[in-house]
Amino acid sequence: MSLIVQKYGGTSVGDADKIKNVARRVAAVKNSGKNIVVVVSAMGDTTDDLIELSRKINPNPEPRELDVLLSTGELISSTLLTMALHAMGMKAISLSGAQAGIETDGLYSHARIVHIEPKRIVKELEQGNIVIVAGFQGMSSDRDVTTLGRGGSDTTAVALAASLKADIAEIYTDVDGVFTADPRMVPDARRLEEIRYDEMLEMATLGAKVMHPRAVEVGELYNMPILVACSFNNNPGTIIHGGVSMEIRNKVRGIAHDLNVAKISIIGVPDRPGIAANIFDPLAKANISVDTIVQNASVNNIADLSFTVARSDVDKALSIINPVVKSIKARDCVSDATLAKVSIIGTGMQNAPGYAATMFRTLYEKGINIHLITTSEIRITCIISEDNVKTALQALHKVFELDKA
Amino acid sequence: MSLIVQKYGGTSVGDADKIKNVARRVAAVKNSGKNIVVVVSAMGDTTDDLIELSRKINPNPEPRELDVLLSTGELISSTLLTMALHAMGMKAISLSGAQAGIETDGLYSHARIVHIEPKRIVKELEQGNIVIVAGFQGMSSDRDVTTLGRGGSDTTAVALAASLKADIAEIYTDVDGVFTADPRMVPDARRLEEIRYDEMLEMATLGAKVMHPRAVEVGELYNMPILVACSFNNNPGTIIHGGVSMEIRNKVRGIAHDLNVAKISIIGVPDRPGIAANIFDPLAKANISVDTIVQNASVNNIADLSFTVARSDVDKALSIINPVVKSIKARDCVSDATLAKVSIIGTGMQNAPGYAATMFRTLYEKGINIHLITTSEIRITCIISEDNVKTALQALHKVFELDKA
Repeated sequence: MSLIVQKYGGTSVGDADKIKNVARRVAAVKNSGKNIVVVVSAMGDTTDDLIELSRKINPNPEPRELDVLLSTGELISSTLLTMALHAMGMKAISLSGAQAGIETDGLYSHARIVHIEPKRIVKELEQGNIVIVAGFQGMSSDRDVTTLGRGGSDTTAVALAASLKADIAEIYTDVDGVFTADPRMVPDARRLEEIRYDEMLEMATLGAKVMHPRAVEVGELYNMPILVACSFNNNPGTIIHGGVSMEIRNKVRGIAHDLNVAKISIIGVPDRPGIAANIFDPLAKANISVDTIVQNASVNNIADLSFTVARSDVDKALSIINPVVKSIKARDCVSDATLAKVSIIGTGMQNAPGYAATMFRTLYEKGINIHLITTSEIRITCIISEDNVKTALQALHKVFELDKA
Repeated sequence: MSLIVQKYGGTSVGDADKIKNVARRVAAVKNSGKNIVVVVSAMGDTTDDLIELSRKINPNPEPRELDVLLSTGELISSTLLTMALHAMGMKAISLSGAQAGIETDGLYSHARIVHIEPKRIVKELEQGNIVIVAGFQGMSSDRDVTTLGRGGSDTTAVALAASLKADIAEIYTDVDGVFTADPRMVPDARRLEEIRYDEMLEMATLGAKVMHPRAVEVGELYNMPILVACSFNNNPGTIIHGGVSMEIRNKVRGIAHDLNVAKISIIGVPDRPGIAANIFDPLAKANISVDTIVQNASVNNIADLSFTVARSDVDKALSIINPVVKSIKARDCVSDATLAKVSIIGTGMQNAPGYAATMFRTLYEKGINIHLITTSEIRITCIISEDNVKTALQALHKVFELDKA
């Protein structure tokens, strides 16, 4: 029998009426003759509320305890959705992450799924149940509750779909799918009917928050097609998959942007071995994620080194970097927390240098200064002033003809 | 090493500050050189709030799902108390009912503890941890979450104390212990320093809500002393135990009352075999708890039969009873939902008939009509009008000299 795994995010189960709406959608799938497993996130702001409550008691809660605390949000929504299905006369049962067989490593708060043992799910499906699984959580080998980190319910859904050999993993959220750019910034932005895993991964990593990057990775690994669609309507959404239609090759597929960017530049760095380690080791130890790193060509063995961090990490990063700057005898260290990333994404761009040139010329024509440039196989990213983001997005969207079907 | 099990109720962990208060009390025990296991209830009104939320979605939720939903309340409070202890620099770990080894039968919503396997608790204690256990919950043999019913956290605490061979189970609540009568009704009511299990059981069953009757039964079964005291002060509380001081024998120990009483009387019942079954079987099937049952002596094979139910069950009971009344050709069926129970409780009363006579005479002198009388080994209960309860309690408290130490 055909099997579908669906996931509903926090806004889709935000209150009693929305939960009933999800129940109707789920029941319709079951009544069409398909088996269905549903993964749910915590209702609305539950997770944030629990974090706030815990901070009142301990500003730095131990991750093991925080994981148990936060896992309750998904237990609540999964039982409520099950009750809503019962009220409609449907057979359904809720399972915690542990009961669903989601075994993780012991890295609390950002655990990775090690293995899924879906025996219980299979048994419940065989008994005619719709199975509702609490997302975002699993169990370590010590039988302790773990959570998969923000957006982990997406990962739960795609991993379960792979483990159960489902036909598809459907991720329902509050937007209509993946767009060529953020529609709030670019009014002409279009929904993509399909997108490749690697393109989606770049989109997700670069700020298109429609889906969690890890879930895309899992989908790619098991070649599990993923539908991203809206839980409040019946629009078709976007399919993420590995196949490439010939006509979408060698094209810019989408433009992503990220406003949470700050740049730190160390000026006049003596160019000798070990300097980079001196700078980046203490940042890693302080759990500061360093993103783009650019070092210019050295002149007279003196170089400039720039990197980006999340804006919330700037002060902490500077307090760590400043003593290092002195000790390595660099000239200065400056920061700018008013920057943003704009990226064009598309498979095959690496074989067509024209894309980069077009991107840089378009920004130049709009009078937009480029602070840093980085590229990957399928992406070109420019760091620009946040004030220029909207202008840049709209100009790039137009020049790469993303408004045309 | 000395081991203490403490339990803190919902009002004791009602907000962040109260949780910190409990953490300080718990830390003091640990710092005094004792091992300690703490059982917590859900914060304040959490359980009621979750029930209300579920009713919006399904007025009759399946007990399995309701149990998972309600169990989250204790998971939350147990992690928060653990975080509060960490903030004080104490070693502590939270465990769910399942992790604490509390194995129950599969009767969702009112599961009974079948066995406790405290391996994990013992391991954590050996590692120097204060162990915080989520009360009220366990795990069935199917590895599903079960709850023990209202007040179940008391049962968790006493059962864990028995299983771990603790020195004592301490139940902390928002009152100072067990009183000779409800202090809101009888200003002279005194805290009892000690009380026997069987006396406490009668007190608890008859409306002294300070402790759950099942927890007292478990305490009696394993001869585990129980302290009932207030979490907001250091008053000594009341010890519940099996020992009997000579001086407290043959005395009324306390007076309990219960306002949630309705009487149903069937008048002119033909006195023949099987009639009682005809009446009470359908009530039992409808899950209506029938309490006191009194049948007067039959005259010409016609008797009157009265029984009490909770007030919320009166209408349902009448709708079930009325057809039976017709079919057995009884004369009439009347109900009164304005009644109350007043009981005097004390070991050894059965050997001293003077207590009953004193009770009846005292009520008579106050002009109080007695509707029904029932007795047990250690209790005499009169059903009277609710309007007379305060007068009755104060008069009985005085005549049995409960105001005197």
